[in-house]
Amino acid sequence: MTRAYNFCAGPAALPTDVLQQAQQEMADWHDKGLSIMEMSHRSKEFVAVAEQAEQDLRELMQVPDNYKVLFMQGGASSQFSMVPMNLLRGQAKADYILTGQWSKKAIAEAKRYCDVHLAASTDFASAPTQAELELSADAAYVHYCPNETIGGVRFDYIPETGAVPLVADYSSAILSEPLDVSRFGMIYAGAQKNIGPAGLCVVIVRDDLLGQALPGTPAMFDYQTAANNGSMYNTPPTYSWYLAGLVFQWLKAQGGVEAIGEVNRRKAAKLYAFIDGNDFYANPVALANRSIMNVPFTLADDSLDAAFLQQSEQAGLLNLAGHRSVGGMRASIYNAVPEAAVDALIDFMGDFARRHG
Amino acid sequence: MTRAYNFCAGPAALPTDVLQQAQQEMADWHDKGLSIMEMSHRSKEFVAVAEQAEQDLRELMQVPDNYKVLFMQGGASSQFSMVPMNLLRGQAKADYILTGQWSKKAIAEAKRYCDVHLAASTDFASAPTQAELELSADAAYVHYCPNETIGGVRFDYIPETGAVPLVADYSSAILSEPLDVSRFGMIYAGAQKNIGPAGLCVVIVRDDLLGQALPGTPAMFDYQTAANNGSMYNTPPTYSWYLAGLVFQWLKAQGGVEAIGEVNRRKAAKLYAFIDGNDFYANPVALANRSIMNVPFTLADDSLDAAFLQQSEQAGLLNLAGHRSVGGMRASIYNAVPEAAVDALIDFMGDFARRHG
Repeated sequence: MTRAYNFCAGPAALPTDVLQQAQQEMADWHDKGLSIMEMSHRSKEFVAVAEQAEQDLRELMQVPDNYKVLFMQGGASSQFSMVPMNLLRGQAKADYILTGQWSKKAIAEAKRYCDVHLAASTDFASAPTQAELELSADAAYVHYCPNETIGGVRFDYIPETGAVPLVADYSSAILSEPLDVSRFGMIYAGAQKNIGPAGLCVVIVRDDLLGQALPGTPAMFDYQTAANNGSMYNTPPTYSWYLAGLVFQWLKAQGGVEAIGEVNRRKAAKLYAFIDGNDFYANPVALANRSIMNVPFTLADDSLDAAFLQQSEQAGLLNLAGHRSVGGMRASIYNAVPEAAVDALIDFMGDFARRHG
Repeated sequence: MTRAYNFCAGPAALPTDVLQQAQQEMADWHDKGLSIMEMSHRSKEFVAVAEQAEQDLRELMQVPDNYKVLFMQGGASSQFSMVPMNLLRGQAKADYILTGQWSKKAIAEAKRYCDVHLAASTDFASAPTQAELELSADAAYVHYCPNETIGGVRFDYIPETGAVPLVADYSSAILSEPLDVSRFGMIYAGAQKNIGPAGLCVVIVRDDLLGQALPGTPAMFDYQTAANNGSMYNTPPTYSWYLAGLVFQWLKAQGGVEAIGEVNRRKAAKLYAFIDGNDFYANPVALANRSIMNVPFTLADDSLDAAFLQQSEQAGLLNLAGHRSVGGMRASIYNAVPEAAVDALIDFMGDFARRHG
């Protein structure tokens, strides 16, 4: 088995240790004679796996007791509908902050359910400051994307929204560093960056926000339904849930989010330092708002993009192409991307610049 | 590795060959240096996997060209909402046939979106005949469950509904025998019985039924959105899709649905023959409507249920407990459950009856 360095934005790299454990127990889980994916979601074995995963996530994120942790399906894109359907709670307006492609998509879907007030919008290369936020007193909630995966734009603070619940699409930054969950009404995250395989979406929602879904909300889109049934109103994506549990255990073994956060900041700092110190490469994001998970960069001469991608792939550095909507390059350096991968990328980038600069 | 015989109703047994292939390529797919679950859904590698899976399913089921095949999330339970949200098409009423717990759940959800007319209802131990169906001329569609997983009740014919589209929840019987897809407006099936792991739902829908979703239908619940984007409007459950593709290839290697259908009918026939020929066991379903996938049975003395379950498990025959809503026993004998498993079950049942009868 050879493992390349994988900078994919998502579905993204998983820890090799996790994949090897999953591989080892694929067809015969814990000597039970069957795969964990062949077990009833209501079996005592799977329920134990599921509960352990929730408990580990709660521990890792220090989720307060008055929050439900839900394991749902449909990705963050389904949350773009579920958030207004569940959290408007009889109100007509919600505040959204526009900082990139993902908050833009969330806004487009929300407009189908409520009046969207833009509390701030940027050029997709920075985040607004707290002072720049124009928050509505009558908003049902404030929605933002703390880490824009495509633009590589990160909020360097948690917005203060007073009594109005703050809702965050944390898909590409969840578990990447410590976070005070109590500041949020709700956090959601598609699994396929820092949690596990695609097809699972984690929702962390404060109890008092449940139970007021819009009429016509599908049962499967109602957080209360999921909460009432321990995320097993119907058959959940059991194998994804199991893999997420293995990732949580791996993360605990790394020292948790505090320890991995240090590694992540170090990985990002050295990559940005290299980019800033080399005329051949550039990153367009405001210094204070640079993502520690997704690092987009451009080549001074974009006619070299194809050569860069081809040669980096040959060097075992995979999936460095930027998002199809923006082009250029992007290195996603999630928890499971080791520091050695960033070092190898910097070496390659230096070498490529010398040869082509 | 030991593989037990697994009679779970779902998530259910998968072919051992499929699990072994998945195991072998878990951490390094096709020498690419990463898992298929770590690849972008838009990579040429994954797109090839996804397209091959669709093509194989189309070939296996002989899906006509005027039907879309969609790979969705949220299980059949999400379809209970999506069907009315997409297929009412300006009409107010839909016909539903009630034959068990799953059609009952579909009806409860549909009532939130339209007038539900019961075209027939049974005691959950039989299916109505064509003559017994009271179909409405003004129904937007007719919904039924051709195989009720809990009751083990199977329609022995495809209802004739004239110009009104027929919609079927085929979760527990898809790919179990040949089927004339052209008789249906739409077929859907949660993957976790005959297709792959939980978290994937296959939808086969006729083109002319698309594009008229109710206002307020979440983008992710609109079949047109999925159809327009090749089921990649957002990140699909890539690993489940890949595994489904392996199952389709395995099924083709078995000779397709015609060949597996013969095996399935033989497996079911010998199990029912044994049950009928032994006073110790009973199956309550009308002869014409006995499922070839799910075989519920009771012991004459239900005080022996616990001993039966304990001893069968010790004999390597797993997950024979009936659904928690009905009790008793149930042997789910999907495609991936080999004939030898049914033989072993019959041997055990005979032995148990002799010892306890």
